[in-house]
Amino acid sequence: MTQNRHISSLDRMLNPQSVAIIGASDDGSRLSGRPLRYIRKAGYAGRIYPVNPKRDVVQGLRSYRSIAELPEAPDVAIITISSKLVLTAVSECAEVGVGAIILFSSGFAESGEEGRIEQQKILGICHERGIRLLGPNCLGVFNSKIGFFGTFATSLDRSFPRSGNVAIVSQSGAFGQHVSYLMTLRGVGISYLITTGNEADVSLDDALSWAASQADIDVIALYVEGIRSGNGFVEAMELARRNKKRVVCMKVGSSATGSHAVSSHTAALAGDDAIFDCVLRQYGTHRVRTIEEMVDVTYACAMGRLPKSRRMGVITLSGGFGIHICDMAEISGLELPALGKDVQENLLKILPYASVSNPVDCTGQAVNELHALAGAMKLLLSEESIDGLFCYFGTVPLTEAGISKALRSAVLEGTRECHDKPIILCMLADQQELRSYEEAHLLVFEDPARAVTAMAAMAKLKESEQARDSAGLTLAKPLEIPRRPLSEYEASRILLEAGVPVVAQTCVATKIDCIDAAKRFGFPVVLKLVSAQLQHKSKIGGVILNIGDVAALTKAYDELWRRGSAVSDATIDGILVMPMAPPGIETIIGVIRDPIFGPTVMFGLGGVFVESLRDITLRRAPFGEEEANRMIREIAGYRLLEGTPGKASYDVTALANVLSRVSVFAAANADQIQSLDINPFVVWEVGKGGIALDALIVSGKNMTSEVGQVVPIPETAA
Amino acid sequence: MTQNRHISSLDRMLNPQSVAIIGASDDGSRLSGRPLRYIRKAGYAGRIYPVNPKRDVVQGLRSYRSIAELPEAPDVAIITISSKLVLTAVSECAEVGVGAIILFSSGFAESGEEGRIEQQKILGICHERGIRLLGPNCLGVFNSKIGFFGTFATSLDRSFPRSGNVAIVSQSGAFGQHVSYLMTLRGVGISYLITTGNEADVSLDDALSWAASQADIDVIALYVEGIRSGNGFVEAMELARRNKKRVVCMKVGSSATGSHAVSSHTAALAGDDAIFDCVLRQYGTHRVRTIEEMVDVTYACAMGRLPKSRRMGVITLSGGFGIHICDMAEISGLELPALGKDVQENLLKILPYASVSNPVDCTGQAVNELHALAGAMKLLLSEESIDGLFCYFGTVPLTEAGISKALRSAVLEGTRECHDKPIILCMLADQQELRSYEEAHLLVFEDPARAVTAMAAMAKLKESEQARDSAGLTLAKPLEIPRRPLSEYEASRILLEAGVPVVAQTCVATKIDCIDAAKRFGFPVVLKLVSAQLQHKSKIGGVILNIGDVAALTKAYDELWRRGSAVSDATIDGILVMPMAPPGIETIIGVIRDPIFGPTVMFGLGGVFVESLRDITLRRAPFGEEEANRMIREIAGYRLLEGTPGKASYDVTALANVLSRVSVFAAANADQIQSLDINPFVVWEVGKGGIALDALIVSGKNMTSEVGQVVPIPETAA
Repeated sequence: MTQNRHISSLDRMLNPQSVAIIGASDDGSRLSGRPLRYIRKAGYAGRIYPVNPKRDVVQGLRSYRSIAELPEAPDVAIITISSKLVLTAVSECAEVGVGAIILFSSGFAESGEEGRIEQQKILGICHERGIRLLGPNCLGVFNSKIGFFGTFATSLDRSFPRSGNVAIVSQSGAFGQHVSYLMTLRGVGISYLITTGNEADVSLDDALSWAASQADIDVIALYVEGIRSGNGFVEAMELARRNKKRVVCMKVGSSATGSHAVSSHTAALAGDDAIFDCVLRQYGTHRVRTIEEMVDVTYACAMGRLPKSRRMGVITLSGGFGIHICDMAEISGLELPALGKDVQENLLKILPYASVSNPVDCTGQAVNELHALAGAMKLLLSEESIDGLFCYFGTVPLTEAGISKALRSAVLEGTRECHDKPIILCMLADQQELRSYEEAHLLVFEDPARAVTAMAAMAKLKESEQARDSAGLTLAKPLEIPRRPLSEYEASRILLEAGVPVVAQTCVATKIDCIDAAKRFGFPVVLKLVSAQLQHKSKIGGVILNIGDVAALTKAYDELWRRGSAVSDATIDGILVMPMAPPGIETIIGVIRDPIFGPTVMFGLGGVFVESLRDITLRRAPFGEEEANRMIREIAGYRLLEGTPGKASYDVTALANVLSRVSVFAAANADQIQSLDINPFVVWEVGKGGIALDALIVSGKNMTSEVGQVVPIPETAA
Repeated sequence: MTQNRHISSLDRMLNPQSVAIIGASDDGSRLSGRPLRYIRKAGYAGRIYPVNPKRDVVQGLRSYRSIAELPEAPDVAIITISSKLVLTAVSECAEVGVGAIILFSSGFAESGEEGRIEQQKILGICHERGIRLLGPNCLGVFNSKIGFFGTFATSLDRSFPRSGNVAIVSQSGAFGQHVSYLMTLRGVGISYLITTGNEADVSLDDALSWAASQADIDVIALYVEGIRSGNGFVEAMELARRNKKRVVCMKVGSSATGSHAVSSHTAALAGDDAIFDCVLRQYGTHRVRTIEEMVDVTYACAMGRLPKSRRMGVITLSGGFGIHICDMAEISGLELPALGKDVQENLLKILPYASVSNPVDCTGQAVNELHALAGAMKLLLSEESIDGLFCYFGTVPLTEAGISKALRSAVLEGTRECHDKPIILCMLADQQELRSYEEAHLLVFEDPARAVTAMAAMAKLKESEQARDSAGLTLAKPLEIPRRPLSEYEASRILLEAGVPVVAQTCVATKIDCIDAAKRFGFPVVLKLVSAQLQHKSKIGGVILNIGDVAALTKAYDELWRRGSAVSDATIDGILVMPMAPPGIETIIGVIRDPIFGPTVMFGLGGVFVESLRDITLRRAPFGEEEANRMIREIAGYRLLEGTPGKASYDVTALANVLSRVSVFAAANADQIQSLDINPFVVWEVGKGGIALDALIVSGKNMTSEVGQVVPIPETAA
């Protein structure tokens, strides 16, 4: 509904020259009194109009008895009154010509049908008059650059965030203020907070798109419970990626209980978490799992130096902590390359007692030779094989007697010449001490494990920046797919048209044709029953493999007819003849239609990998071969494809090509395909490609049930 | 070496009446001046004797020119002088009759051969005189109960820990002081810190055993880089479990690079991390992966209320945070049971707008009705199905204007009657506010994810307390196992003696005997070459399966002889005849001899699970069936054994029995068995048991190489 409106329409809400507060309380500790108190305390320079029918003065400011009395049409009206009075207030705002409304009040769509209808009425007025509406049931917004705190966030009682290159966009007000407070404590500058609440008008996508369009924003902290439009969300993420904004996303509802709780909490659809997870990755958004991780990664990214690769150096005063950082780096996918001989020799010249592999352990002794420590840091930072540095200084900054000062001088000296690589100091120090390091563009973490997690997140964000997006893919014209149950033979022909290699096959109706076909293909062959109603043929013995000669063929032919006829309601279209394919690794390629994200491609290895281990990966269609390659590498069973010394490696390139083709086909025919199942797709050794051995397409919306079966949902999609 | 000395021999070191500081500096900021400064500042009431050849007064205290001048034999001598002077000082201490030595100085075993020899000399003196020696190269100890800070930990410049029910035992001084500082900030009371350094005499096991014997200690935070004696470490853990101490262990060196770094850092062996991990679990020690987790879990356990089960309740002011806690709980293995109808109805009476499933979402509105919130907490805490509670109050405690006070009253009211279940409040508040909750035995966490991790750790520690240990197992008399390569037939007979079900088999040397045997077993049968030199028979085609009749049998018999004869150097002892076993799930049971922990049993599923996914689990031998049951449930492939609706479930009970028997056999024959491989052990459906289909035992130390092969290390052990 809001997709076509230009995101700049939110400018008036976030950058207002004037603001009216409808229902402003004289008591600054009340929800309805907080925005006024905050705005004034923060020194907002715009015009402020409290509206309160009972008072002429509110919190010392001239107040208006009604909206109609306002001396101008304010850019924003903040509505804080009871839900029953909101509709009237919104009408009056519309009359006056306000630019945008921030609606705190709850009691709308989130509380039942009556509230939903009321919310629709309000939305109707706003749409008609071109007013952007935030909420209802939201915590509001802030723009700390101009001191506009249009929110009742109680954490502002403690401190206001300073402005900076971070924006927070959150569906939950509680979450928004929680992380805003933590980030402020951490010294992160936050220019904007937008909480979207019920999203009657302004959706999460709108808010994300707006934040992604702000030149002064580099990092967006995004909190999601559920989204309404897959397209809108993907477009917003694509915009952020194009504009080089780093999006750090926390999405709740991954657990069974949790995703149930989401639906009871908001009107939004939770979406399948596994698909959501893959989509975030696909469009370059970094998902975090905890609040702490969100704060850490945002803090690190806000510093602005992302590592060019995953290769890191470690320098430590304690061997144990060096090892700990190694351990965590391995888990996080970072690498600690061995140092060049030159560097090692130069390090030993400076610190003869140090262990100069990576991690470089200077031992506690280096505290007495801080100049040498600085030299070692310089050496490491000049190493080309390393794109980021961890330094462990532990409790040294806590020391009395000048040692902490001396450490600071040494560290600033050792890092002064480095202007691009991220440097993380792991140490315990007080706030003031930390800030002095941060001013020199150094990151400080108390906990080494958290430091590693943040560095790894930065490395992944950097990689995804470099990743090509799917914008370049062209979708072919949709195929004509009958809206009725399709046989395997029909499905195979459609796949062939889509450019997927499919095993040669002929559909025959007589024994003579069958023998002819088998001879043409060469024995051994496979016979299968062809029937649109029998989509899981093997369950009734509708597939006979490895038929070695004409005698066996005729026997098998008769047997299949017999088995097919035994199933009432199934029309047998004929018998499929195909050669036995050479063995390879069996994979499964599927397409499902996600209610949020549309056609989604699933990939996994056959057998226990998919059935028992649920070792699958997903991508929203369409995507290119590069993305398909990343996808293939995500499954645990990848090492089977990759091969090991002494074991074959398989044609991942061909597989990636097929996955991409399937995704393009699925996207082009999104309206026609309910699901698709290539099981197995056999992959042969490198250079030999692969082939689809079985295909099942469920088309259209009016699917009929399979004989004796429920509507076939691919097993592989679970 | 130190196993037989009674742990109480450390009492004098940790509870000294008198202390000498050898090399005490007048400058309290120097390493050699710190212990004296700390001890006096902390109000240590014992007798203090600085020893410094150059001064009569040190830091205002009378000082002694030499050790010989001391007026008494002090309980402890802290030696802070250069490594070259240490041997003489230790001799003098021995002359005087000191009880224990704490040796800070570095430059011993950790620095090379010369240092190692010097360390041995010092140790010799100490052993001879019965002096316990801590270090060298250690950070010392503290006993905060008596103000004895025999350490140079710089973090004490900031604050002294208060005494409490926590002890820290650490191989790394840096780690010890790092976590001691963080725990102190967190309000955790720490009575003892012991850092073991080079462990010339006092080992990690000794320190752990001592801490596990202190009546005033409930929780031990343990930091490990590597251990020397598996037995000593296991005994210490067993002692801790018997004495109901919770051990929270951080062990570094899990990564490839990290474990390499461990060996460069200390003299200790890193041990295989996967084995270490399983051993910790086996003996009820909780492993943490990060420092933060160590602090969190220690903090939570120190409160003293562990949940009786994994079933938790959640009450929240924000739906999103409720969902987040659900998500984290699922990952951590906690459960959120549905609430009873009664409770739900009663909750709705108090909070009609709340969502009363679990999590109970009171919404932000409840802040205005804190009495109702208190009532809801009471209701949840009285629920029998719930053994712990998470409460999310977010930023409310930050609020000005009395709301935070009112919240505190409500929470104290709501939890007052609960004396056993752990209650974690997730909220942002200042230190003083936090403490007021903690005084009421409530735990406070800023981050919900960390709260969940800590609760899950407590639940697991509680479970492992209830777990039976292996003390009750009796080992059978060792079998007589020849110290030479064994054939499959010999290995199978040994396994049978150990009580493992093995497929029926006969070793024949003539075709007639072969046919007889096959007829006795009934077709189809399997033939295998029997040769101690051919331990991987299938590689040379030494196994022929599924032989259906006499004709096929005679053909196979001849073929096997032909194949066997083609291998030079292999003595063929005969042909093994066995029936084809009914199909089931193939598992692998192995035994390896870990250099630290001795015989260790490995379990996994056959095929890709072990070979490609490395989906295995380990346990130190011996262990009982209960432990075996836990072990089986740890592998990812367990769901294949467990079965699903429509799929069979397999005889896990029988499997657990076999695993336990194998472990008992491996322990009883520890000196004789290098490795054992049952591959496959086939498990049948529930009630039908299972059977070993192949066995390989490598015995003794003087193994010869297999023909054309390297010494057979089981593939499964990687």
